[in-house]
Amino acid sequence: MRSSPISRYRRKTPNSQHLYQLATRIFAGGINHNTRFYRPYPFFATRAKGPHLWDADGNQYTDYWMGHTSLILGHNPPPVTAALEAQVKDGILYGTANEISVRMGELVCKAVPCAELLRFCTTGAEATMYATRLARAYTKKRIALKVEGGWHGYSHSLLKGVLVPFEEPESLGLLAEEQRYVKTVPFNNTEATLQAIREDKSDLACFILEPVLGAGGCIPADPEYLHAVREETARRDVLLIFDEIITGFRLALGGAQQYYRVEPDLVTLGKILGGGLPVGAVAGIREVMRLADPALKKNKSKLCRIGGGTFSCHPLTMATGLAMLTYLREHEAEIYPRLDKLGERARSRLNRLFDEYRISAQSTGIGSLLLTHFLRPAQTKVVNSSDAYGGDRERQHEYHLRLMVDHGILFLPGHLGAISCVHRDADITRLIEASEKIAQEGL
Amino acid sequence: MRSSPISRYRRKTPNSQHLYQLATRIFAGGINHNTRFYRPYPFFATRAKGPHLWDADGNQYTDYWMGHTSLILGHNPPPVTAALEAQVKDGILYGTANEISVRMGELVCKAVPCAELLRFCTTGAEATMYATRLARAYTKKRIALKVEGGWHGYSHSLLKGVLVPFEEPESLGLLAEEQRYVKTVPFNNTEATLQAIREDKSDLACFILEPVLGAGGCIPADPEYLHAVREETARRDVLLIFDEIITGFRLALGGAQQYYRVEPDLVTLGKILGGGLPVGAVAGIREVMRLADPALKKNKSKLCRIGGGTFSCHPLTMATGLAMLTYLREHEAEIYPRLDKLGERARSRLNRLFDEYRISAQSTGIGSLLLTHFLRPAQTKVVNSSDAYGGDRERQHEYHLRLMVDHGILFLPGHLGAISCVHRDADITRLIEASEKIAQEGL
Repeated sequence: MRSSPISRYRRKTPNSQHLYQLATRIFAGGINHNTRFYRPYPFFATRAKGPHLWDADGNQYTDYWMGHTSLILGHNPPPVTAALEAQVKDGILYGTANEISVRMGELVCKAVPCAELLRFCTTGAEATMYATRLARAYTKKRIALKVEGGWHGYSHSLLKGVLVPFEEPESLGLLAEEQRYVKTVPFNNTEATLQAIREDKSDLACFILEPVLGAGGCIPADPEYLHAVREETARRDVLLIFDEIITGFRLALGGAQQYYRVEPDLVTLGKILGGGLPVGAVAGIREVMRLADPALKKNKSKLCRIGGGTFSCHPLTMATGLAMLTYLREHEAEIYPRLDKLGERARSRLNRLFDEYRISAQSTGIGSLLLTHFLRPAQTKVVNSSDAYGGDRERQHEYHLRLMVDHGILFLPGHLGAISCVHRDADITRLIEASEKIAQEGL
Repeated sequence: MRSSPISRYRRKTPNSQHLYQLATRIFAGGINHNTRFYRPYPFFATRAKGPHLWDADGNQYTDYWMGHTSLILGHNPPPVTAALEAQVKDGILYGTANEISVRMGELVCKAVPCAELLRFCTTGAEATMYATRLARAYTKKRIALKVEGGWHGYSHSLLKGVLVPFEEPESLGLLAEEQRYVKTVPFNNTEATLQAIREDKSDLACFILEPVLGAGGCIPADPEYLHAVREETARRDVLLIFDEIITGFRLALGGAQQYYRVEPDLVTLGKILGGGLPVGAVAGIREVMRLADPALKKNKSKLCRIGGGTFSCHPLTMATGLAMLTYLREHEAEIYPRLDKLGERARSRLNRLFDEYRISAQSTGIGSLLLTHFLRPAQTKVVNSSDAYGGDRERQHEYHLRLMVDHGILFLPGHLGAISCVHRDADITRLIEASEKIAQEGL
């Protein structure tokens, strides 16, 4: 009888196991990121290049996690590392306004349709927090509506309705009062969403959503859904916020708002924007963003104070981000159609394959994003987070673990994957063949 | 008649003025950080090395802002840049657990007295938010007590009581409900603080404070104050949180808790920790920190979910932070006494000098931190934020601007300065002489 994937994983990763044991004496649970933990223990990376990541035991992985989907040009793309090495010589951290941020900001405003004005910060979690603050400041209303399974980082107020059961608190230590004015609706459910907007319109500041639900299951919005919420929010003086931390510069240079042709009032950006270095940004229409102008600061009651932070506009991030955006802009016409094609091929072939093996599965996603869900008998389709979390998550974990241990293909167990410019047709073929092997052997 | 410092500043910085004009079309108010804005407009940095920073007009400044006090070894110290350049070759962003974070975490736990377990995140604002969440999770109580003028970043709940008038909201877009369980007391006021702790003890989760008030005026805590609040919080089952984002690895390798010999239950870290790259961390006693162990995640109600984030444990930050802490550890015995001596000399000479010129001023701080306040007629001493904000801020702005424009010495107007290992005795002498010149000319 063949050994279990978990015991094969242990045999292949003794150095990671040792590091994990060391790590448990230093970090709570041995890790620094809940998402990065999986059973039996995560491997510890030591090196990365192009499509590949290596662990502490020298195992090589073709990486589809790609730095939480940040690395659209793969690991260490030459234009980005060259810009980084040059900036290191000019200075790591100025702590002041700096020239390079102006050039970087200009590119963002050119690329992203709704971005009339911009504010850089350091993480996506900061960006979403600032976006809701701006919406409340502008509308003078209180409620932020989000979707079930929508992930906007770990801030006190938006950490609500993320995991099933959605109605239970996401964490110890959160206060009901802090979340009192955050409400949730099911994703892609137009009727329920429009009704919630109408119901709360007099106190509804914003509707914030990822146009492609990310951590909540890699599920694209129906175009009609986005158009309907755009129309309804505009009608009710509610700001529409797209959290494009994953989709920005990925679905298109201008993100999901360009892809779907739906313009929000505010957008949050991160990941790809930084070229691999820490970044967040909130951008949007002038009349909202201008509330953050510090010239208003003489009077506390006139200014919407948003970050900021020691590392905002970090010269290294501005240099790598500028190199990343410049490259994407110059190669826009090749990159996005090609990524879309690879993604489409991966999803449709995986769907057909599991179908052939009578394994009830659905590979969701759009463009270069994908995640394979294994459905339970009663399920037919994954259209929102309830469906995603209602799937057979054990089987998904095993599928991802077997891809990793037996085929050297990395999908972080349970999480979406992102195809990057360094992935070739042959990589997608290998992914499909490996999945077929797993299906053959039984899953 | 001599021109005003503002017009001299404009004449010296035409390129910065041009960049600022460009920036106002991209960023709300032309900036990305409220703190970094000052009248008439901030200069735009283009290069930094050792003690120096250069702006877009080629003006050179001896930098005492030093990346918001992060750069204790100065700009681009060789051990840090070497580690950074080496790590760039191994990979910029893994997005997974990584080996180098284990070595880095080990050093932090060795250096910082209360750090039994640790969690890295990406910014200080995240760290303070997570620290209060952990305290609420552990104590099952709600109130977070902070000091007036205490600065813990831009999160919804802790952005309270920061600027005068302390009782007014700090920003548009904050909800009263989100801040309902955050209260403030005056810094260094033992009686008022102990009374607040006793009064609220049954619902008081934590008291969070900077042992040296940073943005609130560069004011060290009286040792007796820290000892008294340590004793009282312990007695009332309230967690004591030191925000050591500024003081960590600066007052001593083990931070203010080592310097003052007062151990908090939790500590937040940032700035120096990252060696110039973005970082935050929360650390503390095992029984609190273990609530963040993701092995508890099977049940949402048992886990305190804290970050995390795409960029947490960033390989570049781990590399630069490791290089920074290793250097500080190996040179601990020289570095800290020398920095203390330079700081002491600067503060005492500045105090004596303004006294000689009958300018009512006080240079506050401790160790390598300093800020010169200009007092109003009724004021005698700066012991808390009310005193700091009650001072003559216009005069302080002018002093800093004249240091910058006439003497090439950078204190970000209105903000504390930090002496670094690259500052020589001669630099301090120049600071004193420049200040004397300014006093002579009239201020």
